[in-house]
Amino acid sequence: MHEFQLIKKYFSNLSKNNKSSLNLNDDVFFDKSKNLVVSVDTYIEGVHFINFKKPELVIKKIIRSSISDLICKGVDPKYYFISASGNKKTFSSSNLEKISNSLKDEQRKFNIILCGGDTVLSNKLSFTVTSIGFSKNIIFRNNAKINDDIYVTGNLGDSYVGLKVLKKQININQKLNKFFVNKYFKPDLNLKLAKKLINFANTSIDVSDGLITDLDKLINKQKLTYKLSLINIPISANLKKLLISKKLDKIKYVSQGDDYQILFTANKFKSSIINKTAKSLGIKISKIGIICSNNEKSEVTDQKGNKISLKNMGYYHKF
Amino acid sequence: MHEFQLIKKYFSNLSKNNKSSLNLNDDVFFDKSKNLVVSVDTYIEGVHFINFKKPELVIKKIIRSSISDLICKGVDPKYYFISASGNKKTFSSSNLEKISNSLKDEQRKFNIILCGGDTVLSNKLSFTVTSIGFSKNIIFRNNAKINDDIYVTGNLGDSYVGLKVLKKQININQKLNKFFVNKYFKPDLNLKLAKKLINFANTSIDVSDGLITDLDKLINKQKLTYKLSLINIPISANLKKLLISKKLDKIKYVSQGDDYQILFTANKFKSSIINKTAKSLGIKISKIGIICSNNEKSEVTDQKGNKISLKNMGYYHKF
Repeated sequence: MHEFQLIKKYFSNLSKNNKSSLNLNDDVFFDKSKNLVVSVDTYIEGVHFINFKKPELVIKKIIRSSISDLICKGVDPKYYFISASGNKKTFSSSNLEKISNSLKDEQRKFNIILCGGDTVLSNKLSFTVTSIGFSKNIIFRNNAKINDDIYVTGNLGDSYVGLKVLKKQININQKLNKFFVNKYFKPDLNLKLAKKLINFANTSIDVSDGLITDLDKLINKQKLTYKLSLINIPISANLKKLLISKKLDKIKYVSQGDDYQILFTANKFKSSIINKTAKSLGIKISKIGIICSNNEKSEVTDQKGNKISLKNMGYYHKF
Repeated sequence: MHEFQLIKKYFSNLSKNNKSSLNLNDDVFFDKSKNLVVSVDTYIEGVHFINFKKPELVIKKIIRSSISDLICKGVDPKYYFISASGNKKTFSSSNLEKISNSLKDEQRKFNIILCGGDTVLSNKLSFTVTSIGFSKNIIFRNNAKINDDIYVTGNLGDSYVGLKVLKKQININQKLNKFFVNKYFKPDLNLKLAKKLINFANTSIDVSDGLITDLDKLINKQKLTYKLSLINIPISANLKKLLISKKLDKIKYVSQGDDYQILFTANKFKSSIINKTAKSLGIKISKIGIICSNNEKSEVTDQKGNKISLKNMGYYHKF
């Protein structure tokens, strides 16, 4: 059973009288009367990160992954809480100092403040991060309109290559290995975009589980489909070179997740303001497809217009 | 290193410009400008609960333990988030149904709503609960005054006996075993007291790690001491009988934690309103001691006025 089927079956009824929890079918909780936005995520060694050899990098990744949930909804994160479970080695003075310094960097970069948490001894390493922001409005899931353009920020796929480098499944050269690993641990979050996004996006999500998986999630309660054009899915110059030199399949690299870019849809008339915003903030926003009615089928097409198989794309937590 | 020494050394500086986080030296986070109160706690199998044979009871215990942090500060909990890590067996249909029904009970009893969370696969079972409430004020730690009376709600020690029954370290009879185990899994929280407490308590904490440990925590930044009278520490009739029949040491049973009763101090002049409140709410509030100046030494005395040794009382997470 997929994670969200499980949530729906057993837990949706526990929040049914509470509009704010969005039927547990969104990445955040939003209490409009209090302007409160909350996200809770758990990260486990071996599942969400490989190991804890670089605590300072792991901690950056989990913080960014957590606040990304707020940013993609048009909300500035303000507070965060970390609950850490680990053994004595995890909490060695040397590790704690690295974690503390790393958090200091993140606090400065994203204007967030540590507000509490918990530390417990366990033979299994895991972190739960609670992120809180305040906003009068958020961008909801399941609010795409037919004919909306589909956009994504930044580049996709670099993080996945970084993961493969870390797992020693790929080896390029020292410089490029470092480039991709950095993208894995320190995804570029578009904090400045958060407050602007609300002006043009109809619906949005961050790409954590993979482009296709997250696009499916984004509209999972709507009777809508999508058409994506593979060539328009943005990748870095480094990934482009790698795909060519190693004859790799682009679709397999751009739909694996961990990108933490923002995927959103907007009315066609918004394209000019979107382009202007991208320019003024100095960020990349690419139009990658279109939302269609349920009469059509969701598809990704290559340069020649051929459909691409989407089997086994992206990441689901199965139970 | 104790948990709060660790927090102080490595993480206090990350919240130093933020009064709301109370220097990470309280059980809750309080943002006065937003009336927001947040508590985050992690519960691990083998540490905070023995096993998951009774999911419906474990889930009650962790929810109550989490919202207890808010209630003891004078705040009604409103929202909660659960992040659960476990294996496929943990998330079996049968377990999920039990958890869901158990949460439904707790929601009704304490007027709280599930608002989100996370579910991840892991070979180690753990839960992180984030509880949120709204209040203009809270009762802070480290705000006791010299000559304050020290009070505690309900009874102490029943939960510890329940734990010993579960661990098969003690066996009384079926009926009493059940009584104590119930106190362990379903501590009595004084929700109705929360809003009244703020009228008379100078400082407060919930008894989770043990009476002595938590009293030390309550005033750890103050140059104060305390005198407790063992005979006044409230225990149930069932525990009283057990202590007599098995010739057990009262102090060892009332200072082990997991009670989730409220420990607070108040000015002597408040004793009449405290007694009235207890009566009108139908709850037990016992005066157990007094706050003293730093010229004296903290001590617990027995009926004859003899000092009792307090070595190895209560529970600390050591790293």
